Amino acid sequence: MKEAEFSRANRWLLPDGVDEVLPPRAAALEVLRRELLDAWRNWGYELVMPPVIEYLDSLLIGTGPDLDLQTFKLTDQLSGRMMGIRADMTPQAARIDAHQLKRSGPTRLCYLGTVLNTRPEGPGRSRNPVQLGAELFGHGGVESDVEIIALMMETLRIAGLPTPHLDIGHVGIYRALASEAGLDLDTENRLFDCLQRKAAGEIRDLLEGVAPGPARDRLAALTHLNGSVEVLDHAGEQLAGAGESVQTALRHLWALSSAVERQIPEVTLHFDLAELRGYRFHTGVVFAAFAPGCGQEVARGGRYDGIGEVFGRPRSATGFSADLKNLLALSERELEPRPTGILAPWGDASDLMTAVRELRANGERVVVELPGATVSPEELGCDRQLVESNGAWKVVPLTE
Amino acid sequence: MKEAEFSRANRWLLPDGVDEVLPPRAAALEVLRRELLDAWRNWGYELVMPPVIEYLDSLLIGTGPDLDLQTFKLTDQLSGRMMGIRADMTPQAARIDAHQLKRSGPTRLCYLGTVLNTRPEGPGRSRNPVQLGAELFGHGGVESDVEIIALMMETLRIAGLPTPHLDIGHVGIYRALASEAGLDLDTENRLFDCLQRKAAGEIRDLLEGVAPGPARDRLAALTHLNGSVEVLDHAGEQLAGAGESVQTALRHLWALSSAVERQIPEVTLHFDLAELRGYRFHTGVVFAAFAPGCGQEVARGGRYDGIGEVFGRPRSATGFSADLKNLLALSERELEPRPTGILAPWGDASDLMTAVRELRANGERVVVELPGATVSPEELGCDRQLVESNGAWKVVPLTE
Repeated sequence: MKEAEFSRANRWLLPDGVDEVLPPRAAALEVLRRELLDAWRNWGYELVMPPVIEYLDSLLIGTGPDLDLQTFKLTDQLSGRMMGIRADMTPQAARIDAHQLKRSGPTRLCYLGTVLNTRPEGPGRSRNPVQLGAELFGHGGVESDVEIIALMMETLRIAGLPTPHLDIGHVGIYRALASEAGLDLDTENRLFDCLQRKAAGEIRDLLEGVAPGPARDRLAALTHLNGSVEVLDHAGEQLAGAGESVQTALRHLWALSSAVERQIPEVTLHFDLAELRGYRFHTGVVFAAFAPGCGQEVARGGRYDGIGEVFGRPRSATGFSADLKNLLALSERELEPRPTGILAPWGDASDLMTAVRELRANGERVVVELPGATVSPEELGCDRQLVESNGAWKVVPLTE
Repeated sequence: MKEAEFSRANRWLLPDGVDEVLPPRAAALEVLRRELLDAWRNWGYELVMPPVIEYLDSLLIGTGPDLDLQTFKLTDQLSGRMMGIRADMTPQAARIDAHQLKRSGPTRLCYLGTVLNTRPEGPGRSRNPVQLGAELFGHGGVESDVEIIALMMETLRIAGLPTPHLDIGHVGIYRALASEAGLDLDTENRLFDCLQRKAAGEIRDLLEGVAPGPARDRLAALTHLNGSVEVLDHAGEQLAGAGESVQTALRHLWALSSAVERQIPEVTLHFDLAELRGYRFHTGVVFAAFAPGCGQEVARGGRYDGIGEVFGRPRSATGFSADLKNLLALSERELEPRPTGILAPWGDASDLMTAVRELRANGERVVVELPGATVSPEELGCDRQLVESNGAWKVVPLTE
């Protein structure tokens, strides 16, 4: 695992789960960063740079308790109000769409920046990931989910990951079934917990006498509605008695499935109707990409319609996000540029300064040898040197 | 003032002094960011990405009370220890040099990232600047100060600022004179305060009977040792009786002055021996660049030898830093790229998808028109469209 490179050497000095990126990995990260930003721009996504810190109200509005627990809190000395350090940039992008840009049509935004988590999101995860993501606001159709999934897969391809598996769920199905069953809050919380563990028997016991038989059967059925695309056929049969919003959700999944298969034929789809990741935030399709082999989640996203409502302007929304440092760690690309450069003597003669300036302007890396310092050209990443020959400065190979 | 663009619209929602960068300014910031990182790489500076958060001990070690007050503090839930959000990346670069890289020769590092300040550093300043900077460790000679000043001026030139004035001081001169005068801590603090206000009379009164006459005269002389390079001549005369470290400092300033004049002939130098900016952190030459006209400080730096000592490894050090958002606000360059792009119909026919993919791979921005959405091509930043003609997809001008 290349991931360990980031943190092992620092662990005794930096807080647990907090890592930094040193040379030459930082240069590799920058290469990947630029390629991704360029790709997103070419898909029509506009870059936004929301602040690392905001009032807590604004940062957590409509996002549920998980994000609250993951958010570091601070008192603002100027206002006395509570501020939070962002643990997720998605709500910030939604605020910008609803509150700052206020456009009526579809709006595509992308971002890339540090977020902080009070605790790592999982084993081996960083508490200071570099979150990257893209969000598409103002369009509720399946086409925008497909575009976001395609952009997520393109992001992972550029990052040099082997083609990931794609897990797809739909929190709207569970939400509608639980609502049809007329459950109280406590029962729904316990049901939610059973579903996460796919405990069909426990679900039947829990709902015995609480929900009508067919509603109970449909909720229990979710636990085994997972697998390849035939799952949608089975769901059509087993959830046939459910209401219109379940049928709409299933049609959405069908349309999504066939569009994704046409657009990204190389990807393996896995459906799981009991997958409720981000349940309290998302409203429709949810998806996650997993690295083949290690099974690690490398990117995720989904639909979260209505988030702008809290900012006074309901908007459809779908998007994905990932951690740039994690993508770099899993990348199979050779992203660390081999350093090359020209060693130049120190001096302020104008012909030498001109030679150095011109080389740098042409994209060459020119490192000046400081008087009195003994350092090998290799340590400075130099493979050539600037020498004076017959009154002119020339770049020649390094001689011993 | 373009600076106001960042914050005005947000003020009621974002905390006072906290700003964000929206389209199309964010794209302009990214253009500038890349040009600066490329320039620093071409000068031999390696990129480092230290974390936004660290243990407070590590973040504040050896930096003095000013930075402490500017630093937001948090409790680490994992360790129970106190953490801080960086208010300055310079000590982080020093930690990386001394503790992570551990090279013996000169080490050039650069960085660019968000820092947070509990309060704005001055009127109109952001509390979440994007700090950029370069540091040169392991070389104590004047050549490294000259290189850092030259790189700082190159940075401001690339950023599109009109040629700034350069203020130069040397905290070692005051430090040595105060030491020679044998002042107690309280008197030195009061003297420091008088010097900031250039109150020569108060200095004489304060030191009357406390310090010997000549030492008193030399400290008072600092208040009027400011102006163009002749100041160094006057200092040579008026501080002639001071000890060797003062004479060494003056020789350092002389050498610096002549090297800077040769390397950056267009810059206006202003010397001020009572300038003690960063006194508790710096140890030698200090400098600041001021935008002509408005007199705003746009970049600053100086020598801070020995900082690595607290990490177990004393190293000479000199560097500069600035705020990328502030540079963009003051830039006279046209950095906001005029959006161009191709509007494409939505569809998953393979020939259409291939056409879109190829255009994007060639660097074109292709925005897909989502079904059911009505948005003008101008709002999507498109000036051309992809249309089918005789069974082939072609890019044609927008017709309306």
